[in-house]
Amino acid sequence: MDFKTDFKPLTVDPDKIYDYSFAIIAEEMGPHNFSEDEWKIVRRIIHASADFELGRSVIIHPDAIRAGIEAIRKGRHVIADVQMIESGTGKKRFQKYGGDLHCYIADEDVTIEAKKQNTTRAIISMQKAVRENEGGIYAIGNAPTALLELIRLIKEGIAKPDLIIGMPVGFVSAAESKEELAKITEVPFITNVGRKGGSTVTVAALNAISLLADQV
Amino acid sequence: MDFKTDFKPLTVDPDKIYDYSFAIIAEEMGPHNFSEDEWKIVRRIIHASADFELGRSVIIHPDAIRAGIEAIRKGRHVIADVQMIESGTGKKRFQKYGGDLHCYIADEDVTIEAKKQNTTRAIISMQKAVRENEGGIYAIGNAPTALLELIRLIKEGIAKPDLIIGMPVGFVSAAESKEELAKITEVPFITNVGRKGGSTVTVAALNAISLLADQV
Repeated sequence: MDFKTDFKPLTVDPDKIYDYSFAIIAEEMGPHNFSEDEWKIVRRIIHASADFELGRSVIIHPDAIRAGIEAIRKGRHVIADVQMIESGTGKKRFQKYGGDLHCYIADEDVTIEAKKQNTTRAIISMQKAVRENEGGIYAIGNAPTALLELIRLIKEGIAKPDLIIGMPVGFVSAAESKEELAKITEVPFITNVGRKGGSTVTVAALNAISLLADQV
Repeated sequence: MDFKTDFKPLTVDPDKIYDYSFAIIAEEMGPHNFSEDEWKIVRRIIHASADFELGRSVIIHPDAIRAGIEAIRKGRHVIADVQMIESGTGKKRFQKYGGDLHCYIADEDVTIEAKKQNTTRAIISMQKAVRENEGGIYAIGNAPTALLELIRLIKEGIAKPDLIIGMPVGFVSAAESKEELAKITEVPFITNVGRKGGSTVTVAALNAISLLADQV
């Protein structure tokens, strides 16, 4: 059996696919109020979702990009609420500065403690993340309960992340958890208005930040 | 430091969150033409995206659900184009029948061969998947080139998957690759019309199929 590829789709060069996609996105987006660096984040979110409505709903705290870049360059860790974010993220760009990606939700001690307290593993995993990391970038794309718990820990003075990328998706508490995030003053954030979101767009925002950090 | 959870979000019981979400989705969706089993797939896609437009764009081949259930019960493997799908999928429901999930895109031989042929790892990973698996459920949520290559291998009589869940997202070739999928007659499929899609909704469809397979 011969597997030589004689059928060529439009283009197979990954960099060219990105460039072409970003050109289409810029054209179809039309006028917007995002700054140049903010747009680098928003267009990646649109690229990952093909959803301009979601892109337009993004809120970026004025200090978020600077804080994210500094955190990566300081070697701070990235904490993900779910493993889909862990596997989708380009980790090399922050590993070179000493940081790594951690996801605690499947840890045995987290599972045991969640059962004991009759609560979600997401909540307990955030408590563990805060115990084990100084600052850090929290990338929450799935569990509203994780985001609400992290906000609680911040308000109680227990947690002090460098940046929160909080874009959980869903019908129960997702939009509400992001409304709460958009109100906090203690920590810069990237979030969006409404129910939409998810692991892929959270990864897109995180990758955009780490690409900015990795630029000279 | 005490981490007891005194702040309770609306509900933290995962089953209740699903039930409540599905009730909201059914109510807001209104009338539709999906069958009872098809709706179990579509509502999970909406749950993972909070996007009714995406849900309404789903196309389910008449044999897709039956073929997916049979494949899982026969212990056929599931092949994912990207690792995000691997980590998001509830694998236990097909592992109990002998199947497992495979993702070849990060394999060293795939990377080497893609460089040599100046093509995408996604394309080479599909060729490897077809060589190494009899039938199988292909879950493609990211790479249009993977889906187009799989369709080519089917048309050439080299590949004969049991089911294709093909929902890549994006601006370059994504919608076109799904149009091609919706035209094939050799293999049943689950796909959608347009640019939207992605790993999370592909996982949602796959999990819905494996939940149906696992029912008595």
